Amino acid sequence: MRDFLPAEKARRERVLGVIRDTYRAHGFDEIETPVVEDSDRLHAGLGGDNEKLAFAVMRRGLTMEDLGAATDPLALADLGLRFDLTVPLARFYASHRSELPSVFRSLQLGPVWRAERPQKGRYRQFVQCDIDIIGQPGIIAEVELITATAAVLDALGLTGCSIRVNDRRLLTGTLRLLGFPDREHPSVLVTIDKLDKIGPIGVVAELRDRGFPVEPVGALEAFLRRPTPRDVLAFGEEAMRRMLPEGVDPVAIAELSEIGLAVESARDGAHEAAFHAEGARASTLALDRPLIQFDPWLVRGMGYYTGAIFEIAHPQLTYSLGGGGRYDTMIGTFLGTSVPATGFSLGFERIVDLVTLADGAQDAVALVHDPDVAPAAAVALQIALIAQGRRVRLEQRPRNLGPFFAQLAASGFTEFAFVHADSTRDSLDFKPVEANTSPQ
Amino acid sequence: MRDFLPAEKARRERVLGVIRDTYRAHGFDEIETPVVEDSDRLHAGLGGDNEKLAFAVMRRGLTMEDLGAATDPLALADLGLRFDLTVPLARFYASHRSELPSVFRSLQLGPVWRAERPQKGRYRQFVQCDIDIIGQPGIIAEVELITATAAVLDALGLTGCSIRVNDRRLLTGTLRLLGFPDREHPSVLVTIDKLDKIGPIGVVAELRDRGFPVEPVGALEAFLRRPTPRDVLAFGEEAMRRMLPEGVDPVAIAELSEIGLAVESARDGAHEAAFHAEGARASTLALDRPLIQFDPWLVRGMGYYTGAIFEIAHPQLTYSLGGGGRYDTMIGTFLGTSVPATGFSLGFERIVDLVTLADGAQDAVALVHDPDVAPAAAVALQIALIAQGRRVRLEQRPRNLGPFFAQLAASGFTEFAFVHADSTRDSLDFKPVEANTSPQ
Repeated sequence: MRDFLPAEKARRERVLGVIRDTYRAHGFDEIETPVVEDSDRLHAGLGGDNEKLAFAVMRRGLTMEDLGAATDPLALADLGLRFDLTVPLARFYASHRSELPSVFRSLQLGPVWRAERPQKGRYRQFVQCDIDIIGQPGIIAEVELITATAAVLDALGLTGCSIRVNDRRLLTGTLRLLGFPDREHPSVLVTIDKLDKIGPIGVVAELRDRGFPVEPVGALEAFLRRPTPRDVLAFGEEAMRRMLPEGVDPVAIAELSEIGLAVESARDGAHEAAFHAEGARASTLALDRPLIQFDPWLVRGMGYYTGAIFEIAHPQLTYSLGGGGRYDTMIGTFLGTSVPATGFSLGFERIVDLVTLADGAQDAVALVHDPDVAPAAAVALQIALIAQGRRVRLEQRPRNLGPFFAQLAASGFTEFAFVHADSTRDSLDFKPVEANTSPQ
Repeated sequence: MRDFLPAEKARRERVLGVIRDTYRAHGFDEIETPVVEDSDRLHAGLGGDNEKLAFAVMRRGLTMEDLGAATDPLALADLGLRFDLTVPLARFYASHRSELPSVFRSLQLGPVWRAERPQKGRYRQFVQCDIDIIGQPGIIAEVELITATAAVLDALGLTGCSIRVNDRRLLTGTLRLLGFPDREHPSVLVTIDKLDKIGPIGVVAELRDRGFPVEPVGALEAFLRRPTPRDVLAFGEEAMRRMLPEGVDPVAIAELSEIGLAVESARDGAHEAAFHAEGARASTLALDRPLIQFDPWLVRGMGYYTGAIFEIAHPQLTYSLGGGGRYDTMIGTFLGTSVPATGFSLGFERIVDLVTLADGAQDAVALVHDPDVAPAAAVALQIALIAQGRRVRLEQRPRNLGPFFAQLAASGFTEFAFVHADSTRDSLDFKPVEANTSPQ
């Protein structure tokens, strides 16, 4: 887990602000849940492997007798730190459904915790940004999620990204047609999910090692060796069919094709409109074509997906910047009745490392006062300047000005003025900080 | 612990935004630390009674043997949820001192956790807003903290608040002169801290019950019965001396008087400047006079205070909205060398309940589309309107429009337009939501 120093913290807040504003503009409503959930709920089987990584919070007031009576260390915990924002959302929706719109567009920005071994790019506390649409069975939900997320990527200046899409029903249908029995699908998908890392040869070798029958593995191998056009959704259903075994779920193909075409055409229309509209937002729309790519081997790890799934691919990165999909049965496990749901989760930590957003450019000035300036006088000057809309820091004049100005510049202060005992607001002489950081 | 629904979450974010912006304008730099700290550090004796309220996080991979070998339940925990932002700040400063300005103005906005019994107004997860100035021994630090915090109260429209101030050295000096031996001061102060709740008679009775000697308790009683002028700092050192036993620490009196006078005069000056300056900020400055009140019996619970202490009093409330003070020895316990420090902590949960901030008034519109409108067309209209700076929500037209419009209005949407299969951006007919929420 990490401390965030001022410059990094400011950068993170700016990126969070862009994400929040963009999703809010697309009609999503921010909510917040506590960082801890009941231990039983965290371990209800909805979090996949992440459940094992949950930090457990001990019951209060435990006695030595409780320790003696426990048959399992986890029995001493009644709460745990959330490992994702999806399990808390399902619990939240089940608790508050009557107070929410019938189609609820949720936005959550917050930390989650996983007890992973620390390694580069993996943190034990990290921020997730999730949007979810609950109560909308139609594909317009997927179109909204992807369009809004593409707008976030645009607003952050993350050009060149694409959204890879697939559908769980196509994966299942394909495996079935290749000859894998249904009960083996989850296990086969674990290996196929490694395709980007180990390649088709690795996948086939692993499946053979794991003892799957020769015939379906051979059929899969032939399939994996087909070339994959990168912009297949531009060509619609026909092109998708050519990439899939004959007879795979035609409804899923039609829906996924419509999602892709709708996202592309909505963005085309918006681009045109933005081009003609006035205002600063227009210029942030830098369209990448095509945005959507059908990937028949996209798996997404979590077991709760039931329909379309998607993932953000960045041209320079081997890992995704976020992903999501439709999970129509999960909310039902909390609520008792089935509720359709779709979600898209951004990997904030990966995104924040890629983004350089300029500071809001608030005019930041330092008042560098002699030791004999009365606090009342220094602070009065400070708040008079603040009232003009500036950010103002008081600094007692140090003996050594070189490192002092370097620190000021690093903190984002652009101007300074010396303050003496007889200074007035009109006598302040502002100079750029930058010029004073050079050695001479 | 609470869930926050959209309207409440938006309100909290607006209040947090005002606090963040105001403190940043006063030169404070936001930082962030992990929500968990090492268990040993949380239980190092710096958190007072709060240490007992820390949630403990269990070590990962505990075995039944570990349970058998534990001589204390806490030995099974290696981490804990922070119960305040001060202990983490001290640890942060000790870790990163070389990367920070020599006078470091820290701003922290974040949740803390205490395992209290749930009761009205007390939560187990709640947000604190702390500012601290580390490395500044002079009273300008206190002046800055109080002035910046007063500006936050102004910006939030919390008029009529006052800042009660005292100094730990005056409390200690007074108790000494009344005849209480030094070793009994912490214990006597616990009772005096209840003055607001149980009154002078209650304090004296409790001290007698607890067996303190008759003579100092009698001297204290005579003292407590003196009338307390509410705006004593307007009168400076002389007035303070009249409220304290003769001979109490003259340096502490002079410093506290100077702090109070400097805050008042800096605010006067700023008010005048704001009055003449242009810009919207000026109008938010509603000066309450006098802001500062000397309270010779203000204690503040935490044992680590060494000098000036302060607390925000609201005219309609019996509890404070925040407080702080100087703690010159605490950082040293982490760092080994003594570092002067002062801090001011806002009780965010109490403040957010009092504040009504208008929504940023972003133009929020709903596009209510027929079921036969293609997703691509609906989303294209949506993002074209977003590009014009609006917040836009897509809604499928429901059968029953009454409750639907009521929900839209409650969610802050002010306008809507019906979207049909042949709608274009120019054909959209926007109407106010409010008019449609009435029963007719």
